[in-house]
Amino acid sequence: MNDILPDIALAERLFTELAAPYAQQVGITRDAYGPGEQTAHERFVDTAEALGLEIHADVAGNHFAVCRGRDRSLPAWLIGSHLDSVPQGGNYDGAAGVVAGFTAIAGLLSAGVTPRRDIIVAAFRAEESTWFPASYLGSRSALGQLRAEDLDVTRADTGRSLGDHMRDCGGDPEAVSAGHSWLGQRPLHAMLELHIEQGPTLETEELALGIVTGIAGSFRYRQARCLGEWGHSGAVARAHRHDALMAFCELALALEQEWAALETRGLSATLTVGQIATPPAQHAFSKIPGEVGFCLDVRSESPETLGHLERFLFATAERIARERGVRFDLGPRTASQPAPMSPALTERCRTLASELGIAHRLLPSGAGHDAATFANAGIPAQMLFVRNQHGSHNPDEAMRLADFAEGVRVIAALIQA
Amino acid sequence: MNDILPDIALAERLFTELAAPYAQQVGITRDAYGPGEQTAHERFVDTAEALGLEIHADVAGNHFAVCRGRDRSLPAWLIGSHLDSVPQGGNYDGAAGVVAGFTAIAGLLSAGVTPRRDIIVAAFRAEESTWFPASYLGSRSALGQLRAEDLDVTRADTGRSLGDHMRDCGGDPEAVSAGHSWLGQRPLHAMLELHIEQGPTLETEELALGIVTGIAGSFRYRQARCLGEWGHSGAVARAHRHDALMAFCELALALEQEWAALETRGLSATLTVGQIATPPAQHAFSKIPGEVGFCLDVRSESPETLGHLERFLFATAERIARERGVRFDLGPRTASQPAPMSPALTERCRTLASELGIAHRLLPSGAGHDAATFANAGIPAQMLFVRNQHGSHNPDEAMRLADFAEGVRVIAALIQA
Repeated sequence: MNDILPDIALAERLFTELAAPYAQQVGITRDAYGPGEQTAHERFVDTAEALGLEIHADVAGNHFAVCRGRDRSLPAWLIGSHLDSVPQGGNYDGAAGVVAGFTAIAGLLSAGVTPRRDIIVAAFRAEESTWFPASYLGSRSALGQLRAEDLDVTRADTGRSLGDHMRDCGGDPEAVSAGHSWLGQRPLHAMLELHIEQGPTLETEELALGIVTGIAGSFRYRQARCLGEWGHSGAVARAHRHDALMAFCELALALEQEWAALETRGLSATLTVGQIATPPAQHAFSKIPGEVGFCLDVRSESPETLGHLERFLFATAERIARERGVRFDLGPRTASQPAPMSPALTERCRTLASELGIAHRLLPSGAGHDAATFANAGIPAQMLFVRNQHGSHNPDEAMRLADFAEGVRVIAALIQA
Repeated sequence: MNDILPDIALAERLFTELAAPYAQQVGITRDAYGPGEQTAHERFVDTAEALGLEIHADVAGNHFAVCRGRDRSLPAWLIGSHLDSVPQGGNYDGAAGVVAGFTAIAGLLSAGVTPRRDIIVAAFRAEESTWFPASYLGSRSALGQLRAEDLDVTRADTGRSLGDHMRDCGGDPEAVSAGHSWLGQRPLHAMLELHIEQGPTLETEELALGIVTGIAGSFRYRQARCLGEWGHSGAVARAHRHDALMAFCELALALEQEWAALETRGLSATLTVGQIATPPAQHAFSKIPGEVGFCLDVRSESPETLGHLERFLFATAERIARERGVRFDLGPRTASQPAPMSPALTERCRTLASELGIAHRLLPSGAGHDAATFANAGIPAQMLFVRNQHGSHNPDEAMRLADFAEGVRVIAALIQA
């Protein structure tokens, strides 16, 4: 293995170009299947051309750039991520994974190395579900997995369908729903996705790189409610109350305690209760809350841990409802399966990081990523996390280029094989 | 003592007249210093005239009807309450205390009894603080307690000042702020206020009548917040979170537990947390809550219990803030002093209720009432609660006339002395 020096000057120029349209705005807004994302895809094509790579667009508007390998009959490496962002987000969430592919390839080419296999850099569409309320639309379309009904979802801000937005960006929604797939016709060796961490673990532990063991699955209740009885705050004794808020608080804390108990047993998950509100039209200062709305988001790499926490939720809500004379209505449920990374690739990345002297650790991904689409399709997938400074999905999102370079060194070492 | 039969036909007619303007609406809306309250005061005057009572209005628009006693030099009984209601409230909250005065006097007159002392029936203005954000405006103005700045408060719906609204209703705000008071010039023996209970205690225990031991004081934080750190729900581990909502839940449950512990020691209070919300502009499904707004309303007849609970609040909020790395900002504080009822009158009511065979119990008032103004001014005051069926401050508020009559029997017995 050669330790390839990543072309950091190229990475810096690409990040600058991607951020340029937003110089006068707060944060970066690359809207999925809209002008923001489209402009980023145009930069992708320019970059691939400048590097002399083969360029392909698929029927969904995803873009691919191929660096030819010595043996073109071998299954290819795929390196990629998405180019959309949340509204007023940062420049790195998604884009860093695409830039990493170009930066690694440019490093190989400068070093005069022709890779053994084809290397495909991918720019997927529409990963951020703030725009269209569905997961991994771009990577799933790249594998021909979208159906006609998937193309009917509407974008939150425009109200127009995914199919119409796709057509605006040069896509062919009918071909997408028929399962046409450029990528699906090419045998893949593995999919690699570099991404900023989005949490503070690496930053806190002073590690440049995280090697991801798996992408969490989840169960979610986005419109849960606790229903009790409204009452006069001065006039109803404790024994006669059916306080929806106190019942909710007991449930939330019980869930937090069970999460902590799982961690002491070495089991990992994240559990978040949020978007709480007593109904504004009914609540008033001197009223005992008769209703509280909330949402619940539980994630884990382990299906067993998810199952355990959901059974605990049901049993605890039932007990509290009985004891307090309230009712929990959890509302619609959504869920996703955990996506384990390839154990062989995880181990290989760990070895490479050690050999290259890069401070690293293993860690799970609580957030979803395009790599989950490939792992769930049976394609070996591996994510690398680069430490970040101010979280993600906000204008202050940050990443040091030196840390990014460490991730690209691991990728460049991997793709020589 | 004669057991005077209350004139229930009169009471029924008065309640029907008071409700008549609202036949086509949801609930009863007698707006303070507005057309709703004004119409009720007109009915007050009609009723006093029909009973042959002296009628007086004071500079604040409160109305008084005097039934002359045998010895007019003796301090008078005052029987009264307010005639305003909350928006879409019920027909009895307030009005029952005024109708009780007329019903008791009509019973005395029918029985040919001339009372020993003058009996004054009072209809106070603006007790419900939904309209003007201040307590007991009518009864305080009746005692000459309002100052110029009190008249500048604006009504929540109209945005116009109390002074302007008072002038619309025939009042003289300049005279009010100068301390002019019709009632203040008359020596008072005691103030009696009959009121629906507003809670379920009497109804649950199958008792017609409650004899109130005192009106709770309170401390209140209407704009409290817990401030933590926003984060990605999938990406931030438990140890790195500063979850404002979980911290709030811990505080709310700790307060509830301390309240329960006080009750096992025989101390009474009410404690209500409400109007909770994560800020709608910032929260989103996949965010760890960085901020939660809430309000807190604690009431007790005992200043010691109030003090204990507020110290517990401070200490617990400080501990949770330290342990979880969050901050509690309780915001502006308001408070009121407990108003004990006259122990001699409470005992006298208990004896009378027993002698008259009325199922009753002692109980505190968690809610504030005009009687507090008189108790706090050093005038012996006594409240009687009549059981009610569906709480108060809602269109379903209910009271049985037979239960109301039991309360009036006690009043009629009292005011013969």
